[in-house]
Amino acid sequence: MVNNYILQNRQRFLDELTNWLRIPSISADSRFKNDVRNAASYLKEQLIAAGADHAELIETPGHPVVYAEKIVNPALPTVLVYGHYDVQPPDPLNLWISPPFEPVIRDEKIYARGACDDKGQVYMHVKALEIMNRLNVLPCNVKFMVEGEEEVGSEHLGQFVKTNRDKLKADVILISDTALISLEHPSITVGLRGLSYVEVEVTGPNRDLHSGVYGGAVANPINVLARMIAALHDEQGRVTIPGFYDRVIELTAGEREALNRAPFNLENYKNELGIDEVHGESGYTTLERTGIRPTLDVNGIWGGYTGEGAKTVLPSKAYAKISMRLVPEQDHRTITEQFTRYFISLAPKSVKVKVTPLHGGEPVVTPTHSPAFHAASAAFEEVWGKQPIPTRDGGSIPIVALFKKELGLDSVLMGFGLDSDAIHSPNEHFGLTNFFRGIETIVAFYRHYARIKQSSN
Amino acid sequence: MVNNYILQNRQRFLDELTNWLRIPSISADSRFKNDVRNAASYLKEQLIAAGADHAELIETPGHPVVYAEKIVNPALPTVLVYGHYDVQPPDPLNLWISPPFEPVIRDEKIYARGACDDKGQVYMHVKALEIMNRLNVLPCNVKFMVEGEEEVGSEHLGQFVKTNRDKLKADVILISDTALISLEHPSITVGLRGLSYVEVEVTGPNRDLHSGVYGGAVANPINVLARMIAALHDEQGRVTIPGFYDRVIELTAGEREALNRAPFNLENYKNELGIDEVHGESGYTTLERTGIRPTLDVNGIWGGYTGEGAKTVLPSKAYAKISMRLVPEQDHRTITEQFTRYFISLAPKSVKVKVTPLHGGEPVVTPTHSPAFHAASAAFEEVWGKQPIPTRDGGSIPIVALFKKELGLDSVLMGFGLDSDAIHSPNEHFGLTNFFRGIETIVAFYRHYARIKQSSN
Repeated sequence: MVNNYILQNRQRFLDELTNWLRIPSISADSRFKNDVRNAASYLKEQLIAAGADHAELIETPGHPVVYAEKIVNPALPTVLVYGHYDVQPPDPLNLWISPPFEPVIRDEKIYARGACDDKGQVYMHVKALEIMNRLNVLPCNVKFMVEGEEEVGSEHLGQFVKTNRDKLKADVILISDTALISLEHPSITVGLRGLSYVEVEVTGPNRDLHSGVYGGAVANPINVLARMIAALHDEQGRVTIPGFYDRVIELTAGEREALNRAPFNLENYKNELGIDEVHGESGYTTLERTGIRPTLDVNGIWGGYTGEGAKTVLPSKAYAKISMRLVPEQDHRTITEQFTRYFISLAPKSVKVKVTPLHGGEPVVTPTHSPAFHAASAAFEEVWGKQPIPTRDGGSIPIVALFKKELGLDSVLMGFGLDSDAIHSPNEHFGLTNFFRGIETIVAFYRHYARIKQSSN
Repeated sequence: MVNNYILQNRQRFLDELTNWLRIPSISADSRFKNDVRNAASYLKEQLIAAGADHAELIETPGHPVVYAEKIVNPALPTVLVYGHYDVQPPDPLNLWISPPFEPVIRDEKIYARGACDDKGQVYMHVKALEIMNRLNVLPCNVKFMVEGEEEVGSEHLGQFVKTNRDKLKADVILISDTALISLEHPSITVGLRGLSYVEVEVTGPNRDLHSGVYGGAVANPINVLARMIAALHDEQGRVTIPGFYDRVIELTAGEREALNRAPFNLENYKNELGIDEVHGESGYTTLERTGIRPTLDVNGIWGGYTGEGAKTVLPSKAYAKISMRLVPEQDHRTITEQFTRYFISLAPKSVKVKVTPLHGGEPVVTPTHSPAFHAASAAFEEVWGKQPIPTRDGGSIPIVALFKKELGLDSVLMGFGLDSDAIHSPNEHFGLTNFFRGIETIVAFYRHYARIKQSSN
């Protein structure tokens, strides 16, 4: 029945998603403020069309939150769906095969910024609601909270959740913003890394200088910044910030063994990325490096002359954006402070350094023995024919820790993307199989969740 | 008489220069190709107006060379004036107080890109020719060779000089493209550093990745590039490239002492640059670091996300522009090769590295016992009331070595700028005192040169 409904409405589902993807809801760039709001309004309309009793845009000091609900019966369990309708900036634009906000389907995948992260995944939930509603099989109450600031650190969501505790009352949070191991190996994310993201500025002389006249006698902020960045890792690939690893929970040998049992082929991984060798902290596997170890990456760097040809400038300033991925029990505020103190200490007296925290979030581990996890597991098994593998992902969804703290609710991270979907990169895409099978899995989740909750009462 | 002529034509001289400075002759940026040519044509017209018998644009595979001559009498000595009419790119534009190509006079200085480097200095020679011509006091033949590719490495001038050996026959080259110590301390440059300028590209994965999903497991090309750049200097500020110092001529204690007798105030230097400390190779003074020691500076760096806000990208590529200033007897080709070999050896196997040489030039030392040097010295003494101090500058004019090799001619580096003129920087300017006194000094040079040459025959 569910299958049939999807089959009959397949093209409409895709058209609706395509229209949403056309709206460039880039939260990081203030020039797109109106587009971000338009994307929120579009979602609100689609939620009403899907059968929500009520949907609204709730204002924050930043971009609005889309809230919706369908209350079937107050006695039934309530599922709160969380997602985000904002997207990453699309640059570098020249590397997109088709423009980021003109979605096209190629090879059974939809290509657009946000196709997977997270509009495509949120839209599966909208369509799951429509199906359960039309087919009269909705066994739970459903709430939606879809924010517009996830890609810029969910700055205003903490306050929003505090202010709307009653409205957000639920039994579990359901989130699709992660990836499967592969279409052959369904998986459920049970761990996520936290994040500390800063921007640094190194200032040498008070103006750009001629590198011939001053070079060698005045600190060059690019050379200095490079040295400072280099000093953030040791030869073993470990982060050198004092205290950085203090609160990292080391897994037991058994836990590490279990983690490394997940299907993973290093040769395929390297081939797919076009690299001769992987690169990371000594003594850990690739799955461990991205799953259970904290890391530090420079996400952007700039300074001096970057145009065509040669300019012999000794610039006044150099900049970098640096992020650290954190694991339990690292605290992002502490790490940001430790980074700042250490980074400043690395600077010679010939320069000035400024560190600006941009955003942060806590690492999380979600329970694997809850009714919701069991329901998700059963749903995957039913639709994909295989028991899903619990995985720890490298990415961050800071809101998961916040939900636990403010609402006392656990989350189930039932994501349907693939690591190869190029989220945050040019040519982001989302497989149509993932999309439609995801909708089916979500519908199955509700059925199993209602059943398990009822039998446990 | 000369003074009077300048006084009477002061405003016209400035207006003519201003009109030239308005033309954005940025040789590094192909979008300004027509402007570069227009700047050449303007100069040609001004040379004719100043009294040249003949002036022309001579084509090269790049930007044209402006050639002009005034042959008074083949028996007289011939001075070949070299300069350049192209300018550095003006960015960062937002730091200019007035737009770079809308010249304005503030505090007795003319502000514009090229005001000092080198249009303003070339124009002194055009006006000196006019004065000597109108006042009938031109005691030498004069040739002009003003190129349009100095700021991009004078790529086609070598071939041009070879092809035009006969045309360029002269007794000495006169160049104004350097700076005085100060208005109180006139100086003549007798040493210039050479240059090797390269662009490097470090490639990690074949596309931009999500730093959460891949960070810590895949080489980040920015982190790697930073480590590689950091490894180019040791703790003493020495360049670590094997062989880099092999051919550097160490000065004797006496020579170093003489060099350090030049007027220099470290506190003023630091205050003027807004820095707490200078920074460079251990064991050398600031004057030595810029005058007699080779150096390595990153002139530009870029990679990853550099826009507003935060993007958690692990980029595919990172780039830098790196230049080395060379001293006698370093060979720029050898140094470029040594750099390339060493830089590539610094890369881990997890990345790929490409090094592209952009341009190079040899270091030079000019003679201090030639008739031309004595004439320049006498001209300064006459106009400035003080004997000029011989200095070694940090900048590079690659053409000086080329002239020596191809034409067998020495150059006299009679520059009238100041280090504080912000050449290659926002708010480049040239003092009106420097400009007008420079014209007087050039006229005096011709008189002294003709006299000394005659008496030596």
